Amino acid sequence: MNIEMIRAAAERLRGRARETPMLSSPFLDAAAGRRVLVKAECLQETGSFKFRGAWSALSALDPEVRARGVIAFSSGNHAQGVARAAALSGVSAVIVMPRDAPALKIANTRALGAEVVLYDRASEDRDALGAALAEERGLTLIKPFDNPQVIAGQGTAGLEIATQAAALGVTKADVLVPCGGGGLTSGIALALAADAPGLRVRPAEPQGFDDVKRSLAAGEIRRNERLTGSIQDAIITPQPGDLTFPILKAHCGPGLSVSDDEALQAMAAALVRLKIGVEPGGAAALAAALFRADEIEGDAVIVVASGGNADPEMLAEALTRFGSGV
Amino acid sequence: MNIEMIRAAAERLRGRARETPMLSSPFLDAAAGRRVLVKAECLQETGSFKFRGAWSALSALDPEVRARGVIAFSSGNHAQGVARAAALSGVSAVIVMPRDAPALKIANTRALGAEVVLYDRASEDRDALGAALAEERGLTLIKPFDNPQVIAGQGTAGLEIATQAAALGVTKADVLVPCGGGGLTSGIALALAADAPGLRVRPAEPQGFDDVKRSLAAGEIRRNERLTGSIQDAIITPQPGDLTFPILKAHCGPGLSVSDDEALQAMAAALVRLKIGVEPGGAAALAAALFRADEIEGDAVIVVASGGNADPEMLAEALTRFGSGV
Repeated sequence: MNIEMIRAAAERLRGRARETPMLSSPFLDAAAGRRVLVKAECLQETGSFKFRGAWSALSALDPEVRARGVIAFSSGNHAQGVARAAALSGVSAVIVMPRDAPALKIANTRALGAEVVLYDRASEDRDALGAALAEERGLTLIKPFDNPQVIAGQGTAGLEIATQAAALGVTKADVLVPCGGGGLTSGIALALAADAPGLRVRPAEPQGFDDVKRSLAAGEIRRNERLTGSIQDAIITPQPGDLTFPILKAHCGPGLSVSDDEALQAMAAALVRLKIGVEPGGAAALAAALFRADEIEGDAVIVVASGGNADPEMLAEALTRFGSGV
Repeated sequence: MNIEMIRAAAERLRGRARETPMLSSPFLDAAAGRRVLVKAECLQETGSFKFRGAWSALSALDPEVRARGVIAFSSGNHAQGVARAAALSGVSAVIVMPRDAPALKIANTRALGAEVVLYDRASEDRDALGAALAEERGLTLIKPFDNPQVIAGQGTAGLEIATQAAALGVTKADVLVPCGGGGLTSGIALALAADAPGLRVRPAEPQGFDDVKRSLAAGEIRRNERLTGSIQDAIITPQPGDLTFPILKAHCGPGLSVSDDEALQAMAAALVRLKIGVEPGGAAALAAALFRADEIEGDAVIVVASGGNADPEMLAEALTRFGSGV
């Protein structure tokens, strides 16, 4: 992994991924006690940064390999990113999902042009099923974060942050990034180390699922004890990736963690003050800016709103409970 | 009014107003039966296009005149645009609002740095009160739409639409614009007539408050019979402006009108599919794209989402009633 791979990914993404805006509001500045810049990656194609990595990975494949199609394991944002990137590339995508995934997510992924293969969590081995499909059809597996071209794709968001922050006069600040397996966080960290060394990346996670925060503190990989029980599910993974953790360790400041209610309040603030829809996990960084102000340094903070694929009921709950108080 | 005034306004707005993104979703394309491009002006500074016109008007004033401050009559988006533009210019703003305006709007306008002067609708004459204040303090009145520099500022959104649509390969399409007094609609129409003559502007209004649609059909100004009774209140005015109507008449295609429930469905679609928060009036154009498909020509349509300052309860209602069906 190096900055040249990110710059090459940016070339491949040009005209395909959106350059998402950097938003702000004097109301958020007042609430956070410092200037807050929000990189609205929820406005990316398919509603999350995952499209960047998916397109980067697909476009980096040898054309003959790509033409045989791709496969991914995901019921979330990675599935949608891969499905859409494949459709726009004119190749087939197989998305393997648990049979009990929400019907809406299955329908959305199909509507984006992917073939959805369902498996039973209790009785079937997902990896064996996927390997058999890949073997049979010659499909290439696109992993969600431990893939150099995926990391490079996510890193293109970091190149944009460097340019946009400089244009707004911010060259020294913490950059809070919602962090699951670490693909987005490590990609942005690499990009900023090259283009904006005064901007320091810090992972934001759900309380109780802060494997990256604990891994950074320990200097070696730590696991989450459990994988369910937070609405910020989009950023819960068993542990940091083998490729991503060394990058995080080399470049990131200490992690931050936020409660589910804090994430919901940040969702309400994002919608009322910035007019963007953010999912709970995607709001972790903004929640940290709002509710962990004393753990953040500097008179400005940059936060990534990494995804917007919230269930309508969850957005409505955030508005009803917290909309008038943000 | 001419295109050079819009280009000059764009120069003054550079680095102050945001270049808002042009968003899309394959789900909206499918729902509308054609490609849909959404100019997300709800992501503008202060949450609506009004900041463009306010900044344009303030920055066009003679410095000595501007230094004495400005005054505006508004309890809505124009108030916030003027308040913020004045604060960023370092001059004072007086916003005259009815005493029964929502407390949140009064608080927000004050938080943006304006002095709010309240009047009693029943017993006080707003114009006389404003004139006395303006006279006493040397304030300049910034009208919401019948001001050439305001129209020029709103027209800068049209310059961006021309460039963004061309980059996406769209050079011939209807451009649907939520329309109240016609400042945004006429500004965009002038800009597109110069820079993208294949793009035809069409006003979108609430059913029952379609003064512009009827005025265009009649070839002369028609009034609304009433001014209350729609949640799309941000785009209800007594009649088209004296400055804006001749421009609308010269450049626009037929108007479109949508019901309040259609606007709510469009709000839900914008949030679920594009991840943007749009207010009811700001959603009128997207509603027309979704629900008046047979009145629109061409295989692509451009819609302006003009503002996002919805009450949290209204957004929650849109999500609860329509979020899972869009």
